[in-house]
Amino acid sequence: MSLTNKMWILKTRPKGLVEASNFELIEEAMPELNEGDILIQTEYLSVDPTQRMWLTDVPGYLPPIQIDEVIRSGGMGRVIKSKNPNFKEGNLVSGLVGWQTHLISDGKGFRVIPELLPIPTMLNVLGLTGITAYFGFLEIGKPKEGETVVVSGASGATGSVVAQIAKIKGCNVIGIAGGEEKCGWLEDCGIDHVIDYKSTEATKELRKIASAGIDIYFDNVGGPLLEAVLYQINQKARIIICGSISNYASEDLPVGPRNLSSLIINRAKMEGFLILDYFDRIDEAIQELSKWLMEGKIKHREDIQEGIENCPKTLNRLFTGENKGKQILKI
Amino acid sequence: MSLTNKMWILKTRPKGLVEASNFELIEEAMPELNEGDILIQTEYLSVDPTQRMWLTDVPGYLPPIQIDEVIRSGGMGRVIKSKNPNFKEGNLVSGLVGWQTHLISDGKGFRVIPELLPIPTMLNVLGLTGITAYFGFLEIGKPKEGETVVVSGASGATGSVVAQIAKIKGCNVIGIAGGEEKCGWLEDCGIDHVIDYKSTEATKELRKIASAGIDIYFDNVGGPLLEAVLYQINQKARIIICGSISNYASEDLPVGPRNLSSLIINRAKMEGFLILDYFDRIDEAIQELSKWLMEGKIKHREDIQEGIENCPKTLNRLFTGENKGKQILKI
Repeated sequence: MSLTNKMWILKTRPKGLVEASNFELIEEAMPELNEGDILIQTEYLSVDPTQRMWLTDVPGYLPPIQIDEVIRSGGMGRVIKSKNPNFKEGNLVSGLVGWQTHLISDGKGFRVIPELLPIPTMLNVLGLTGITAYFGFLEIGKPKEGETVVVSGASGATGSVVAQIAKIKGCNVIGIAGGEEKCGWLEDCGIDHVIDYKSTEATKELRKIASAGIDIYFDNVGGPLLEAVLYQINQKARIIICGSISNYASEDLPVGPRNLSSLIINRAKMEGFLILDYFDRIDEAIQELSKWLMEGKIKHREDIQEGIENCPKTLNRLFTGENKGKQILKI
Repeated sequence: MSLTNKMWILKTRPKGLVEASNFELIEEAMPELNEGDILIQTEYLSVDPTQRMWLTDVPGYLPPIQIDEVIRSGGMGRVIKSKNPNFKEGNLVSGLVGWQTHLISDGKGFRVIPELLPIPTMLNVLGLTGITAYFGFLEIGKPKEGETVVVSGASGATGSVVAQIAKIKGCNVIGIAGGEEKCGWLEDCGIDHVIDYKSTEATKELRKIASAGIDIYFDNVGGPLLEAVLYQINQKARIIICGSISNYASEDLPVGPRNLSSLIINRAKMEGFLILDYFDRIDEAIQELSKWLMEGKIKHREDIQEGIENCPKTLNRLFTGENKGKQILKI
């Protein structure tokens, strides 16, 4: 008897948070493998803000997901059948598995992962979000000891790794996050100053805490905080824009900062970053991040939801702020 | 009998365009020279947008001009008396002469200029505006042959030099300027495409003309054009922000671009630039720019007003768009 795949496909494009009606969960019999193919059973999905962008019909760094296509998603799965010499049955693989229980692939874009750590940890610190933090912060930020670093979305999967790498590099680190629980966790991570944007006026707090100026801003969220940061940057400051979580799910884009001329006065730069450009250097990041993990220098936590039926709901958790740490879905 | 200096001092801070009441033209007897001093008679003032910023009480790359201080201005003058071994009577010198007929200086910040070209030309292409174009475009823009370069304020002192260096480097150049006369002059300079923002909708034109995308944007004006450019940048695009002429004279800063996330998608950067950081390399720029001038590869024109009494009016010409080319005031 042939295997059945459960998969979420896109039916209508969401506005704001996603709704059940935007998707359909369908079942399909899996075809036989061709020579060179592998059959993967999905184990964990990495749920990331960028997926919300893929649901919108605007050109991005990857094409938008089309109507009736499976929802694109990173994750890890198990090879359960292989007609490809590069993969063995039982291999754990990482790649774009999608919101589905099974998939057939020619193996391109998938990597075999040694099982040294729990899968959720690997999807977090050693996954694309952690690796994004590593290259984005180190390659564009080029941190120097003693510099002041501000991280927005600091309790998130990318932000928390950035903040802790900044500590490792000897920087003075200010993390901005929402809510007592998340801020408390950041304090446990050893971040120098934590600003709770839900209970205080973040821009005012920033003016007080970063009174000596800001050298690096790692922006995971986009939106109005950037203007506040621009008023406080030091000469030759580096602003890394990596995410615009405040924009992904909103229809009307918020206006941009009025004070870009601060970049002139301070000869500062703002640079966009995508991990795509560093795929050939991923091993370097994994090696370094693993070392820091092992030394206990990077704390991490995963928020693990369960069940293929919960894919849409779990994606929304990123935008409502419900997620505590890296959002994972166990299939 | 001692010499008299006529000087413009700041009395009140302007809002928008400057008015006569913001300044006072006063006369003062010049003191005797101390050992090491030189007496300079101002010949020409370089009138630049940045001066308007210095009149506003906000921190910038130089401190704001204080009430009762002489208005700061670059320019050239003649040494008419010298007690400094580095300067001879008759030397032409360049530096911050200010809105005044005479000044005494210890020579710091002044350079002796060989009189190879007319002074207005030297203040233009070989002056700080031309040198700003040279380093800003080449060092941050790093142009490659065949790339598409957009220049705003393209008929201005900096913009026109940027546009022509871009042509020398083999780029496809789109210049944006206001009015038939200025656009006609830019066409005479050999710019590939000229957009008149007064007679057409610049953002629409840009979409048509730069349909293959934009690699470098040299922004001399700030304001809404940046958003249009951001929608059209190519991967790894460089945006050089050098001036915000649309902001200098306005009280309410226009909102910033909504689509900074285009920097992420395109892994592009936006960097502020000030010539201050390149003072030690000025000779290199002058040598190269002189060569291009001599070869006829850089066309230039100066708008020369006359008379110390016309300083305030002449500054406003930059913001009303009346100036045709580099704004100069002959004392």
